[in-house]
Amino acid sequence: MRVSNMYLGTLREVPAEAEILSHQLMLRAGMMRKLASGVYNYLPIGLKVLKNIENIVRDEMDKAGAQEFLCSALLPSELWKESGRWDVMGPEMFKLQDRNEREFCLGPTHEEVFTDFARNEIKSYKQLPINLYQIQTKYRDERRPRFGVMRSREFVMKDAYSFDRDEKGLDLSYDKMYEAYCNIFTRCRLDFSPVEADSGAMGGSGSAEFMVKSEVGEDEIVFCDECKYAANVEKAPATAEEGPEEDLKELNKIHTPNIKTIDELVNGLGINKKKLAKTLLFKADEQIVAIMVRGDRELNEIKVANALGGVVEFMMCDSEKVINATNAQVGFAGPIGIKVDKLFIDEEVTKMKNFVIGANETDYHFENANYGRDFEGIVGDFRKITVEDKCPKCGGNITIARGVEVGHIFKLGTKYSKSMNANFIDEDGKNKPLVMGCYGIGVNRTMAAIIEQHNDENGIVWPLEIAPYHIVVIPAVMKNEEQVAEAEKIYLQLQQLGIKALLDDRNERVGVKFKDSELIGIPMRITVGKKLTDGIVEFKLRNGGEVEEIKISEIIDRIKVEFEQNKL
Amino acid sequence: MRVSNMYLGTLREVPAEAEILSHQLMLRAGMMRKLASGVYNYLPIGLKVLKNIENIVRDEMDKAGAQEFLCSALLPSELWKESGRWDVMGPEMFKLQDRNEREFCLGPTHEEVFTDFARNEIKSYKQLPINLYQIQTKYRDERRPRFGVMRSREFVMKDAYSFDRDEKGLDLSYDKMYEAYCNIFTRCRLDFSPVEADSGAMGGSGSAEFMVKSEVGEDEIVFCDECKYAANVEKAPATAEEGPEEDLKELNKIHTPNIKTIDELVNGLGINKKKLAKTLLFKADEQIVAIMVRGDRELNEIKVANALGGVVEFMMCDSEKVINATNAQVGFAGPIGIKVDKLFIDEEVTKMKNFVIGANETDYHFENANYGRDFEGIVGDFRKITVEDKCPKCGGNITIARGVEVGHIFKLGTKYSKSMNANFIDEDGKNKPLVMGCYGIGVNRTMAAIIEQHNDENGIVWPLEIAPYHIVVIPAVMKNEEQVAEAEKIYLQLQQLGIKALLDDRNERVGVKFKDSELIGIPMRITVGKKLTDGIVEFKLRNGGEVEEIKISEIIDRIKVEFEQNKL
Repeated sequence: MRVSNMYLGTLREVPAEAEILSHQLMLRAGMMRKLASGVYNYLPIGLKVLKNIENIVRDEMDKAGAQEFLCSALLPSELWKESGRWDVMGPEMFKLQDRNEREFCLGPTHEEVFTDFARNEIKSYKQLPINLYQIQTKYRDERRPRFGVMRSREFVMKDAYSFDRDEKGLDLSYDKMYEAYCNIFTRCRLDFSPVEADSGAMGGSGSAEFMVKSEVGEDEIVFCDECKYAANVEKAPATAEEGPEEDLKELNKIHTPNIKTIDELVNGLGINKKKLAKTLLFKADEQIVAIMVRGDRELNEIKVANALGGVVEFMMCDSEKVINATNAQVGFAGPIGIKVDKLFIDEEVTKMKNFVIGANETDYHFENANYGRDFEGIVGDFRKITVEDKCPKCGGNITIARGVEVGHIFKLGTKYSKSMNANFIDEDGKNKPLVMGCYGIGVNRTMAAIIEQHNDENGIVWPLEIAPYHIVVIPAVMKNEEQVAEAEKIYLQLQQLGIKALLDDRNERVGVKFKDSELIGIPMRITVGKKLTDGIVEFKLRNGGEVEEIKISEIIDRIKVEFEQNKL
Repeated sequence: MRVSNMYLGTLREVPAEAEILSHQLMLRAGMMRKLASGVYNYLPIGLKVLKNIENIVRDEMDKAGAQEFLCSALLPSELWKESGRWDVMGPEMFKLQDRNEREFCLGPTHEEVFTDFARNEIKSYKQLPINLYQIQTKYRDERRPRFGVMRSREFVMKDAYSFDRDEKGLDLSYDKMYEAYCNIFTRCRLDFSPVEADSGAMGGSGSAEFMVKSEVGEDEIVFCDECKYAANVEKAPATAEEGPEEDLKELNKIHTPNIKTIDELVNGLGINKKKLAKTLLFKADEQIVAIMVRGDRELNEIKVANALGGVVEFMMCDSEKVINATNAQVGFAGPIGIKVDKLFIDEEVTKMKNFVIGANETDYHFENANYGRDFEGIVGDFRKITVEDKCPKCGGNITIARGVEVGHIFKLGTKYSKSMNANFIDEDGKNKPLVMGCYGIGVNRTMAAIIEQHNDENGIVWPLEIAPYHIVVIPAVMKNEEQVAEAEKIYLQLQQLGIKALLDDRNERVGVKFKDSELIGIPMRITVGKKLTDGIVEFKLRNGGEVEEIKISEIIDRIKVEFEQNKL
């Protein structure tokens, strides 16, 4: 492609709308533009990158024996009502009506559609196993779209659905996808980790997220420093710390005017946070629930939601609801006499002795509270793991890092096949539900994650297989006809070899061209300049390294070395 | 691909839902399945065909210098309100709200989005001309989705938008697209015609439709038998026939009880249809309009809509509205004293003498009516051309045939750039509106049109470049190990040559395999059968021809001949 014929939307300034680097660079490099909150248009350069990632995904899915489908984004409500998710998906699902007032949604995911396909088409175990995938546009009305395509409302997703005879078959299908995902993200040159993930209310038997370590990630991941354990903090079990052995003292109501927060209690009563238990109130869909954790602990909402069998909207109670439940102002909630639908107690609280709790009375707390004697509730692991905790697997030290989820694989089992009657006839003649898995990759988010890991102060540094173009050829001085002619010659030669080349033939200074190609992240650059008279051109890798002076006759070989070295 | 690993959704029965052949064959060959009215899922075989067509389109668009974008399908209402089309699009546009009650639509087309992009990004004449395209999913809530993907509610469209400095530039951009479209449909092996199309209320200066002749087409096209004239009947001008010269007789009201239709009048009064003028009543958006045409003529609604400056909904008045306008029962409408917003008179009526019209009084007509003396109205060409008419260009004989519109190119001019303030600074320093063109291809409809033109009693007959696979290799007897091994060998050899090959390794009779490959339309077939012992296999073209017996050592050469002969 000749740059003079291209629309090159590079920007020198950092757009105010972009907080994180990948978002800034995608805008500055002319990859995309915002159309509405969380909705983007792709410019030619950005679309090429997106397609390159799609092609890697397609290639590895095909190699793993999956078959490409393409489903509609416009989905009839009937299927969602059958699976029970029409009302459960909440405001994240875009809903609409057609001219005959039939209800549709824009697919946020496609389990229902593929299960419907399977029940219509799969009759016999002879047709199994089968793994169907698509690379298709999804819609999710995120409460807070942000970070560009990291969390957008319209995005390209590769979603795959496997159908097996039994759990053993599912395990094989799942393992194949695990391997395919590792291949995909390796080819994308991402530093990633597959981590154990919460399988939540989906009721599945296993789940892994593919996480790219990044400061801008919205997830937190626990890594064991000693064994290979890695898990989303949502999933990682926390152990209950034993409290010091003490004799039980008598429960005693104390006057604590204007002492509402944990810190005020610690300062006001002169005690350690470990001698307090806080009672938090949440609205979980239609229920009001209270959860107690030790004063220094953080609640793990996912664990509570799972204990409730799945929750769509989980949010802190407003003050009105707190007053209703506790008969007191906010800040004095406690387990004794509280009016809630469910009271959850983090296991650690049951191991504490003689601790302080809210009294459900304005300006009062209890001291010397003890679980069992003074109150009871549903005991379980409801807190977030911390770096002070030990590895749940080997007991080693752990670290916690932020990560971006680029893929998620999931053993669904028979959740959808049972609710939607997707059965097959097995070899023994019996009717059985299909055993399913589902497997997703966020394609645009993968693009952003690659940028987060591959950039420098001048812009993006694309890995060769992802780059929109492999190489740019730049004549140093456009008025120099020899330079222009030689650049053109090299450009045509590259094209004939199937190398994706750009010829920057714009009437611009060479510095501008360097800046643009570095911002866009073209892996290789050839400059045809002064030394052309000696038969020499300049070659430079975007990914560091010095300018190399190379004979024109040897330039193609030099480039081939680069392709060779970039092979996996 | 090994057929044993594929999901092959071939059906022996013709599905009841499908009326036309391409729809039936797309279902029977396992190309797609219906998800909802006018909404389809694509199975692997169908998706491959769709992608092959997309790639032809992409290739020719790139060669024509256009650049590929990808825009969102979820479009904010603001842009449509600016262009004035938010309220004009009517129920064909799917509208929805997000969680914050902001209005969106699912893009039925993208003029607004590209105009918005251009006004933000194009500042100077130096950036022009530019042509941007995308291959993207569109949504139109058709009143009557039918014929499978011929008229569906979700479909893949290639839409392109050109931006030029002036009309001369637009002419060049338009001509390039005209040529690209001819190349695309030629490569798709379609028997097509570019025809003059109505540019309607869009106010553009030129428009051509690419029509594939087909009985199932929803459009009618006029072809001149003598010159190259071809036009949509919507567009083709009809000439007003001169009536016989007569002296004007006196207008006379006649009693015509129970005579309501043209045929009843002809029989009841014993006169020729050419001595009658009918007055038709329509609701055009908010207006009630009457149109007069000669008794034997058909109204051309598009011509009336254009005369009104564009209409969203144009429909016959119900009897209540007729009674309101005429003060009479249905069947007695006429121009004298009618209460309508506009009265249109087909020019031919002005050339008639002493003719019969309705009297706007139940059971009465007038005879000896004459235009000018008895009534007046807006005169113009409002009737449909017929085969009895002459070519509007050369006066030769014409024929009328049905056609499927697979592409449409359009000179928009400054309609959108003016309403949306998309300007650039020209060389003379002046601010000018961008001059635009738009260019669409229905990709799924093209697929269906190819099937309509390429099939036989056994199924689809894909052209080589469109086919999901080039060739199928079939071992005649799966229990014969030599046959299976040789088939496998040939299959692997084909794959290495980059030929898209299928190996039908299912445990099925050879007859079943023949039937499936013919239904799907695979262009070439190799059968490894009895004569393997003599080193001979069978080769057969899907597109007619006998079974050829070919030495195994020569089979690759035979296939190469086929590729060579299929080159354009």
